[in-house]
Amino acid sequence: MLEEFFHPRSVAVIGASTSPDKLGYAVLDNLVEGGYVNVGKVFPINPKADRILGQKAYPSVLEVPDEIDLAVIVIPYPHVPPVLEECGRKGIPAVVVISAGFREAGMEGLERELELVEIAKQYKIRLIGPNCLGIIDTFTPVNASFSAGTPPQGPMAFMSQSGALGTAILDWAQAGRLGLAKFVSLGNKADVSEIDLLEAWVDDPDTSVILMYSEGLPNGQEFIKVAREVTKVKPVVAIKSGVTKSGSRAVSSHTGSLAGSEQAYQAAFHQAGVLRASDMAGMFDMALALGYQPLLRDDHIAIVTNAGGPGILATDALERSGMSLARLEVHTIQELEQYLPDAASAANPVDVLGDAKADRYRFALEVVSRDPNVDGIMVVLTPQAMTEIEETARAIGEISLEIDKPVLACFMGEAKVEAGIHILRGYNVPNYSFPERASLAFRAMSKYRAIQERQDPVFEKFTADNQAIQRVIDGAKEDGRFAIGDAEAWDILRAYDIAIPQSKLAKTSQEAVDIAGEIGYPVVLKIASPDILHKTDVGGVKVGLETADQVKDAFDLMIFRTERYLPEAEIWGCQVQEMAPPGGMEILIGMNRDPQFGPLVTFGLGGIYVEALKDVTFRIAPFTRHDAEDMLKEIRSKALLEGVRGNPPIDKEAIIDTLLRIGQLVEDFPEIAELDINPLIVYPKGQGAIAIDMRLVLESEK
Amino acid sequence: MLEEFFHPRSVAVIGASTSPDKLGYAVLDNLVEGGYVNVGKVFPINPKADRILGQKAYPSVLEVPDEIDLAVIVIPYPHVPPVLEECGRKGIPAVVVISAGFREAGMEGLERELELVEIAKQYKIRLIGPNCLGIIDTFTPVNASFSAGTPPQGPMAFMSQSGALGTAILDWAQAGRLGLAKFVSLGNKADVSEIDLLEAWVDDPDTSVILMYSEGLPNGQEFIKVAREVTKVKPVVAIKSGVTKSGSRAVSSHTGSLAGSEQAYQAAFHQAGVLRASDMAGMFDMALALGYQPLLRDDHIAIVTNAGGPGILATDALERSGMSLARLEVHTIQELEQYLPDAASAANPVDVLGDAKADRYRFALEVVSRDPNVDGIMVVLTPQAMTEIEETARAIGEISLEIDKPVLACFMGEAKVEAGIHILRGYNVPNYSFPERASLAFRAMSKYRAIQERQDPVFEKFTADNQAIQRVIDGAKEDGRFAIGDAEAWDILRAYDIAIPQSKLAKTSQEAVDIAGEIGYPVVLKIASPDILHKTDVGGVKVGLETADQVKDAFDLMIFRTERYLPEAEIWGCQVQEMAPPGGMEILIGMNRDPQFGPLVTFGLGGIYVEALKDVTFRIAPFTRHDAEDMLKEIRSKALLEGVRGNPPIDKEAIIDTLLRIGQLVEDFPEIAELDINPLIVYPKGQGAIAIDMRLVLESEK
Repeated sequence: MLEEFFHPRSVAVIGASTSPDKLGYAVLDNLVEGGYVNVGKVFPINPKADRILGQKAYPSVLEVPDEIDLAVIVIPYPHVPPVLEECGRKGIPAVVVISAGFREAGMEGLERELELVEIAKQYKIRLIGPNCLGIIDTFTPVNASFSAGTPPQGPMAFMSQSGALGTAILDWAQAGRLGLAKFVSLGNKADVSEIDLLEAWVDDPDTSVILMYSEGLPNGQEFIKVAREVTKVKPVVAIKSGVTKSGSRAVSSHTGSLAGSEQAYQAAFHQAGVLRASDMAGMFDMALALGYQPLLRDDHIAIVTNAGGPGILATDALERSGMSLARLEVHTIQELEQYLPDAASAANPVDVLGDAKADRYRFALEVVSRDPNVDGIMVVLTPQAMTEIEETARAIGEISLEIDKPVLACFMGEAKVEAGIHILRGYNVPNYSFPERASLAFRAMSKYRAIQERQDPVFEKFTADNQAIQRVIDGAKEDGRFAIGDAEAWDILRAYDIAIPQSKLAKTSQEAVDIAGEIGYPVVLKIASPDILHKTDVGGVKVGLETADQVKDAFDLMIFRTERYLPEAEIWGCQVQEMAPPGGMEILIGMNRDPQFGPLVTFGLGGIYVEALKDVTFRIAPFTRHDAEDMLKEIRSKALLEGVRGNPPIDKEAIIDTLLRIGQLVEDFPEIAELDINPLIVYPKGQGAIAIDMRLVLESEK
Repeated sequence: MLEEFFHPRSVAVIGASTSPDKLGYAVLDNLVEGGYVNVGKVFPINPKADRILGQKAYPSVLEVPDEIDLAVIVIPYPHVPPVLEECGRKGIPAVVVISAGFREAGMEGLERELELVEIAKQYKIRLIGPNCLGIIDTFTPVNASFSAGTPPQGPMAFMSQSGALGTAILDWAQAGRLGLAKFVSLGNKADVSEIDLLEAWVDDPDTSVILMYSEGLPNGQEFIKVAREVTKVKPVVAIKSGVTKSGSRAVSSHTGSLAGSEQAYQAAFHQAGVLRASDMAGMFDMALALGYQPLLRDDHIAIVTNAGGPGILATDALERSGMSLARLEVHTIQELEQYLPDAASAANPVDVLGDAKADRYRFALEVVSRDPNVDGIMVVLTPQAMTEIEETARAIGEISLEIDKPVLACFMGEAKVEAGIHILRGYNVPNYSFPERASLAFRAMSKYRAIQERQDPVFEKFTADNQAIQRVIDGAKEDGRFAIGDAEAWDILRAYDIAIPQSKLAKTSQEAVDIAGEIGYPVVLKIASPDILHKTDVGGVKVGLETADQVKDAFDLMIFRTERYLPEAEIWGCQVQEMAPPGGMEILIGMNRDPQFGPLVTFGLGGIYVEALKDVTFRIAPFTRHDAEDMLKEIRSKALLEGVRGNPPIDKEAIIDTLLRIGQLVEDFPEIAELDINPLIVYPKGQGAIAIDMRLVLESEK
């Protein structure tokens, strides 16, 4: 996929310039200097030049005698649409539009961009940009960008919605911090998006880690679907910016992309198996470990250090990031004790002492790496008087090549350890300036292992009476109502086999007494009116009615009061409702639609846990049973589900089942904009749950 | 204080060696090469040499004709005690013992160390070490350490319990990352500790930020007292390692210092005003901002950037770290709009666009820095084609010198921006490779401002009947009991004027009925026995007794059952107790003693909030009313104190008052090892609180 972008047989640079301070010159220069001229043909397109940088120029792509796989457009924006049309007529399959002046430049620019999309569709052109830096494949090699120079080869493929951030990353790469297989500046994403690149790179043999910086993912559901497949094959590390309130305001003023909510992104990346970095440093730290070292089999890490203090820092950092310290086998400790000086520590962290030379590090590493309880090794080095920094780096590098466990180094300091870090890089051993950062890299490896081990998602299907639901929705719409509650909402829940209280509408107080007799006391009485949504506020709910008299009185009082204080409300009567038995726990299940990812389902304990503690968790529908199970483990108050203070554990299966059914409901009925079951009362294990109240809001435009 | 360590008029190196691979040579070399020979006298002490590195040598300090201010001991450990004795006889006031082989080397070493302490005390010698790297003062200049070279001058004073970490820090300093005024490797802290250095550096004109790496603070209460004073004058940034479980195991095997609990450190640093860094990178980030830039007046930051993406990252990062984006004045925006290109963003973040040269940055910075709503500026730069990196760095530097607001830079990239970063350093503008790190630095400045603005702590004193308390404690001890509950515990609370339920011991059922009549129904009945602590478990508590008959029955049943099932228990009768009125909220107040910091007082909501959610917060007694107020704001469930779901706000003053009284109680009675008031029932505002139950455990050794 997108083959012509990364392995073109020929490239045209439309707007190639003879003047070195023009971008059109820089792009051509990168194609020439980056070595592409040795593997493919380059056609500068410039009506005023014969030859640029040694390449024969043509006035238009239509005049080029050969086929063209890739065109790069670097001309002022008014000329871009006609030139793209020419590319179409020439049959060019892949085009990068570097030129700016489109969506990012207001309404007029947006129209111009839509014109590009139209032309591209017509001629089946795939288009990267506009308003971007260009693209690079270091293995082809093709550098079709105006970057200053070409980054070194490496296992990372990077895509960025921000060109400027791209320049910073290229600079880090050129300084030797990391090697890139591919680099794509996505610009306005008029056509090719993150999703296309994920699909293109999943099978790319040169790429072992995919990195992305994104400001918004408009096609969120598709992103999750594709990324879920890709992350089974190779890790994807992402930075999503604009997550805070001010941040997302900045995004919308920046590229006009609509930022999804932080909760939706959190859920989406989780479900897609995308590792999320909170900042650039974190992204690089993860990428280096994932790209250059074998994966962790389990989470037990050994530390080898030449100093106690940093060993403690490393221990703290590992534990804080959720990893654990390997417990060394007795024979490992004995072997270490035999050779290491008396003052050394042979238990993990293994302290080879400040006077350790390279041979002592090598010995300790060899012994420790053979221990079956050790899944990964962090080598900490401080530059002390006797330390052989370069020799030690070589020893670490050599051992890392012999074993299939990840080794991360932490050479602390700067000037003195620089040469050692350089040697480590030659052996693909990443170095972290602080143990904390190495720990987070191990953590990312551990997380990625869990992602790879995930089973293929199975989306359960429940039989539901969709026609009954449609009737309720249509009925409400016909009346011009967008909010649905009470009996109508129960009809929907009933259609999904979610337990609801027995309930019946009574038009008179006698009818209410008869119904209460059928249901059995105690009962709840609620005013039934399409005009009253918040019944409690108007005294329209009475609970715990024990006798016929109480029901009668409550009925009459409710009708009397409503007629008096809300004379314009239509009154259907009162709903007589079974009272949920005591001993249950209140749960909230909700849903609202994220503009990018669609139905975002919420779970939390009801009452103060939601209101005061905001202790809730999210998934994007559709989600799996496994996801629903995880939701129950993610809330802070999860211990309450297990029963505290002598209470029995509650029926988690009933919650999971309800979550899955609600997930299906909101998928099947996109006209449901919001929904709240509050409370779902859940009883002890095996005794099920009952949805007491649901409110549902319809999309007003549909 | 400790004047002779940092500004000695003469230094003796005991164990000065002629052989360049010996530490005794390195120390002397640093004194000579570091420039000390130009300002003071150096005396190598070596019985076998006449002259070392050009300095006349003496066989012993006793033979040196001049006075000696500072002696550095670098000889094998068996000889250290007699040589220290010689120092004493010579009248040397300050000694650094570099030699190892003391406390860190087991029991025998510990004895040797205690011998050093004894000699030092006898001769009034102040001693740094043993088992350390030495000390440096770059302004004197005196380098009395075996570090490789001398770090550049700067505003930071660094003390480290780990020598190895010290070497790493010196290396960072030498690579130009930061400048040091002082460096002290504390080693085993036999005499001089963190506390002494804080006291010595608080008035040191060369030091503007104090940094510390510590593995344990044995004299915790004193540390808080001293640090609280010091942090009013200059910021103290600390890393405490060994905070996680495995980490603290590693500490105890490392230096044998007993690691305090994480909660105690958290509380102690907070109360002392010490800024805590979670890792070395964080410490440097904070130190650079605090050491090189003016303080923030308030938390509103302006961002000036040449790229949208990083601008969003910066916005996110600032907001996430608790800072806010400055809202620019209308005239600022107008002025920016006038000069900046149309596509630029004149609102914050101010985007000067990718083609911005130095002049555009300079203009934007000048305008933005004049805005009264801007308290600090983050300048973000990505190395794009037109970017004038060095010129821009100079512009930033020059403007930063003209204004009294902090400017932090974020030049993203590596090779290309290096020269720019170097120029920024020349102007004392710290650079951060990512906006996230700059944001945390701003955050540290903001926190430090709040610390400086704190009022001097006032520790309230309550009158209490200490004799009554002593009687209860003595009584329990006489009986050989270490746990106190029920009526005895109430006596203690009553002595502190903490409200408790009315209650009286009944020996017979008739007495119980009489007492209930006095107190008023309903009442609670509890078995009274010194042998039964967990009464509920044996059916020894009956609540809500409404009538004389119920009281009578409950009394007889309780006595009958206890005699039957716990025949060996001593029974005093039953306690008849006022039943707390409904409508209160359960609160927990507790205390246990941290081995380093002393009484650690806990506060949280009772019941599941403590048990399942572990939602508690801590302070070390003594603490102020302000501290107690803060505790109420620190729990996650704090919203419940304000009243949710129609409940009125509860009586916070009553909680604060109880916290302060308990703080005084545990200070006044160090024999109280643990204490729990659970629950303290707190009523709506103005209606007070009542302590229903208290358990108290006495120190078994006292």
